[in-house]
Amino acid sequence: ARYVAQHYSELTFPYRRYHIGKVYRGERNQKGRFREFYQAAIDVIGNNNLSIINDAEIPSVIYSTFKDLGFDKFTIKINNRKILSGFFNSLGIKDVYIVLRVVDKLEKIGRDKVKEELLENGFSLSQIESILGFIGIEGSNKEIIEKLKALNIENELFTEGIDELSTVLEYLKLFGVPEDNFKLDLTIARGLDYYTGTVYETYLDDYPAIGSVCSGGRYDNLAEYYTNQKLPGVGISIGLTRLFYQLMEAGIIKTIDNSLTRVLVIPMDGYFDEGIELASKLRNEEIFTQVYLEKIKLGKKFNYADKLGIPFVIVIGEEEKNSGAYTLRDMKTGEQKSYNYKELVTRLNY
Amino acid sequence: ARYVAQHYSELTFPYRRYHIGKVYRGERNQKGRFREFYQAAIDVIGNNNLSIINDAEIPSVIYSTFKDLGFDKFTIKINNRKILSGFFNSLGIKDVYIVLRVVDKLEKIGRDKVKEELLENGFSLSQIESILGFIGIEGSNKEIIEKLKALNIENELFTEGIDELSTVLEYLKLFGVPEDNFKLDLTIARGLDYYTGTVYETYLDDYPAIGSVCSGGRYDNLAEYYTNQKLPGVGISIGLTRLFYQLMEAGIIKTIDNSLTRVLVIPMDGYFDEGIELASKLRNEEIFTQVYLEKIKLGKKFNYADKLGIPFVIVIGEEEKNSGAYTLRDMKTGEQKSYNYKELVTRLNY
Repeated sequence: ARYVAQHYSELTFPYRRYHIGKVYRGERNQKGRFREFYQAAIDVIGNNNLSIINDAEIPSVIYSTFKDLGFDKFTIKINNRKILSGFFNSLGIKDVYIVLRVVDKLEKIGRDKVKEELLENGFSLSQIESILGFIGIEGSNKEIIEKLKALNIENELFTEGIDELSTVLEYLKLFGVPEDNFKLDLTIARGLDYYTGTVYETYLDDYPAIGSVCSGGRYDNLAEYYTNQKLPGVGISIGLTRLFYQLMEAGIIKTIDNSLTRVLVIPMDGYFDEGIELASKLRNEEIFTQVYLEKIKLGKKFNYADKLGIPFVIVIGEEEKNSGAYTLRDMKTGEQKSYNYKELVTRLNY
Repeated sequence: ARYVAQHYSELTFPYRRYHIGKVYRGERNQKGRFREFYQAAIDVIGNNNLSIINDAEIPSVIYSTFKDLGFDKFTIKINNRKILSGFFNSLGIKDVYIVLRVVDKLEKIGRDKVKEELLENGFSLSQIESILGFIGIEGSNKEIIEKLKALNIENELFTEGIDELSTVLEYLKLFGVPEDNFKLDLTIARGLDYYTGTVYETYLDDYPAIGSVCSGGRYDNLAEYYTNQKLPGVGISIGLTRLFYQLMEAGIIKTIDNSLTRVLVIPMDGYFDEGIELASKLRNEEIFTQVYLEKIKLGKKFNYADKLGIPFVIVIGEEEKNSGAYTLRDMKTGEQKSYNYKELVTRLNY
């Protein structure tokens, strides 16, 4: 929002941006939470107005992204803050944020604790019953919308929220997102953030413990900190560092420790020229080659290849110089075989 | 160096690293000099020892890199600080850095000014004549080495420097760098930096005014700030932001303002569903498609495509809905032509 406010006159609206880069947060350091991490984010920012259809396009991009990352079973949970605020207002609750904050903890602390906390915060039993009844509404997306409408609540914000959410759900299908991958969820509140309408949280179905791996929403007033322009936006982001950390912890993905280097050329004392010439020739064939240049025992040179996971080693000495034959050692199997240069290139390329 | 000192026990030496990322410098802000910029760097760091042959491999990587970037005419200028320090020591000069700092300005301020400055710094006329004579030594790489040897200077550092430089020049050829692309240059000093031996500066032959676009050298003692381990290294870096800025300024490269988006779908009022469905279908064909979702005059929607350089536009209205034919507008030529869906995909893929 700040960037857009600053560069307002140079931009073409609606302004669509994506960004993958490092971001910094003043979070408490804890397992899987980092203060410096990579984030991938997309946003659409309008000038004065921004169609609600953008709120459906954003999760459709997330859908394709997670598909491309190889995930099938994930759910983009969607809600609209206007529905929550409108409903709570209709109960006579002015400070909606207290309720949102408590409701946001529902999954963590359970229904009873939520009830308790709401009581402590001075809400009446009838208000609390209504709140719990409300966030307990379940069913298919269509059913939930029907049930919300059936509440017959006369509150402009509430009605607006239902309209927006219905539109988003409808267009999500048009954008090609299968119904399995998105779900209206009235408990999604996104805490005390700057979101004003649609809100998103994305969960991996088989790993609910990981929590939301991608979240965002509509922010209509964020730019007002920086400019008088009305620049409504909608966006979503993936905390890549945290996501990959958690996928690793859960054993879902693994790092591959392979070296980029295909072959290590080890010249014997006095045969550095021949070793480097061979390496240069192999590099010209696009074979990633390293030469071991330090003076150290031969065993330690093999050790080096081993530790870095370099799959092949060629030792260059008098024999190789004279015969033009190269002994290639497969570091995994220990197998050694002799090749002429042409065969060597073919073998290393296989 | 700090990273290697910190992670010493986890690393396999010689440790080879590359890095492309943002770096920050407390430089004075001026044209083409940035405090935040992208840098590409490579380093090899040894444990206790590091073969001088690495000093030749580093510029061979730079050679391939500049070749891959499309440059042919560039010169990696090479020198060795030990030769300079050794020679200045032999003249009875203890504070070599003052001389280095002045000599480093030779290209900028010229021979006479250098002489003047050296006088001001209290050097004797005979010392200054020797210095100027020394850095004036010219010829092929081989000739310069011969001339240096012919000076018959009895200084260990000087002799060591000549040996190292000769070795680097010899191995550069073995690493496949053509003689046109590297040149011994005794005026290369790299100011007051932490370099201890070989130093590099790379120039684009046709654009000397751009200055050095890639520089580095051998640093034998850098890690001593962080550890008791002796971790000698050699490295070189390209200031990417500055390089590309200067290549742009010089008109050597141009930014392409093209949009990634291939086609903008503009649905008329009441035809958003059809527009989005078409966009989703095109996206599934891997055609980068945007839908214009805001309510605004048609002319401004075309304007949007124009400003962003989106090459094609399709307007979706009643006609298109009923006929299944799509009118594609080529934004460059203004040409409009009607296609059925299959033809449309073919045309957009062409």
